[in-house]
Amino acid sequence: MRKGEQTRAAILDAALELASRDGLEGLTIGLLAERMQMSKSGVFAHFGSREDLQVEVVREYHRRFEDEVFFPSLREARGLPRLRAMMNRWMEKRIQEVTTGCIYISGAVEYDDRAASAVREQLVHSVGMWREALLRAIRQSKDEGHLKPETDPHLMLFELYSFTLGLHHDARFLHLPEAVQLTRDALEKTIQSYQTPAAGANGSVTQPAPPATTNLTSQQTDSR
Amino acid sequence: MRKGEQTRAAILDAALELASRDGLEGLTIGLLAERMQMSKSGVFAHFGSREDLQVEVVREYHRRFEDEVFFPSLREARGLPRLRAMMNRWMEKRIQEVTTGCIYISGAVEYDDRAASAVREQLVHSVGMWREALLRAIRQSKDEGHLKPETDPHLMLFELYSFTLGLHHDARFLHLPEAVQLTRDALEKTIQSYQTPAAGANGSVTQPAPPATTNLTSQQTDSR
Repeated sequence: MRKGEQTRAAILDAALELASRDGLEGLTIGLLAERMQMSKSGVFAHFGSREDLQVEVVREYHRRFEDEVFFPSLREARGLPRLRAMMNRWMEKRIQEVTTGCIYISGAVEYDDRAASAVREQLVHSVGMWREALLRAIRQSKDEGHLKPETDPHLMLFELYSFTLGLHHDARFLHLPEAVQLTRDALEKTIQSYQTPAAGANGSVTQPAPPATTNLTSQQTDSR
Repeated sequence: MRKGEQTRAAILDAALELASRDGLEGLTIGLLAERMQMSKSGVFAHFGSREDLQVEVVREYHRRFEDEVFFPSLREARGLPRLRAMMNRWMEKRIQEVTTGCIYISGAVEYDDRAASAVREQLVHSVGMWREALLRAIRQSKDEGHLKPETDPHLMLFELYSFTLGLHHDARFLHLPEAVQLTRDALEKTIQSYQTPAAGANGSVTQPAPPATTNLTSQQTDSR
């Protein structure tokens, strides 16, 4: 990585931290320059404008989200094991974010009634991509026979997504110690309400082959 | 109402509108004075400080919430009819707030990682009172035999509360046209998962007396 790229990455890292704490609208070039011990013009040299910087912060958050939550889940078997892995990793990230904040959730409130802007657009786009990935995993779980054929993917998505909003609210705002356990229970209750008997109580699906891998996958998923 | 009280009520009304739109932290005496066409010292004469004003705005929102959502629901029969009425009225308020904003939801994000303050304390207290009222209605529904004895009131509260956060998120941030219907479906699915067979498909509970009133109540609840 060239020196310029390293500096840009370091600025972006600091910007993501500030935006998680103070919101995207709380992010200013001045604050960032102070944090980086750089001049404002030094920051501007890497990001043309405050709005460009905000958009890049959303993109960077999305990249990290995909690396931490989405891509590792693709290693799990298609269908319910993968959907469960996505939800488990997402919950882990939410639990971390109880202390650091989440720009998707704070951003959703910051930009909910604002006029169209590049930042809002990028935020809706990124959140939308994750929701599409979840929808796809739900549909694949139906195709694999892990979820009942009458499962409404949009309703299931609404339930799962709402519980992660609830976790953030109860843990971060209300400081409820039982928030994580309640979220796990609610997610499990919802998944089981859609699950077929063939998918088993723990999502360990009997598949023709390779059975050993499938069992291992299920155990890994369960132990999280 | 005396002239001074009228002015105070008018300032509070404008403050609530501004805070719903811009958040409690977006509320300034200067902005409010401009909106009221008053001097800043005129506003200060009614509210000692910006923080006092913010606390009063939270209290005023809570009073209105109780008047619109909680108190009218107490007219319904104790148990599931009352719980359903509370949820229906709360949803109606959330639907209105898709355009105006909700200081409980924006406040939860604004104050989630802030140090203890009078505003945060009042916000947590007000949200907590509403959650206590919901918990009480859930417990009464169990006592009346409308909900299964194994119902975990805290889990049910988590589910119901999360769905109203999901409604706000999907309607106000993502602009999803199906958000209201999905929320209704998710709430209904949750209530039915806890409901006893005796409580009936629509929450119309067979009670010894007076049956006519009970039926009417259930119909009113259903038609909303």
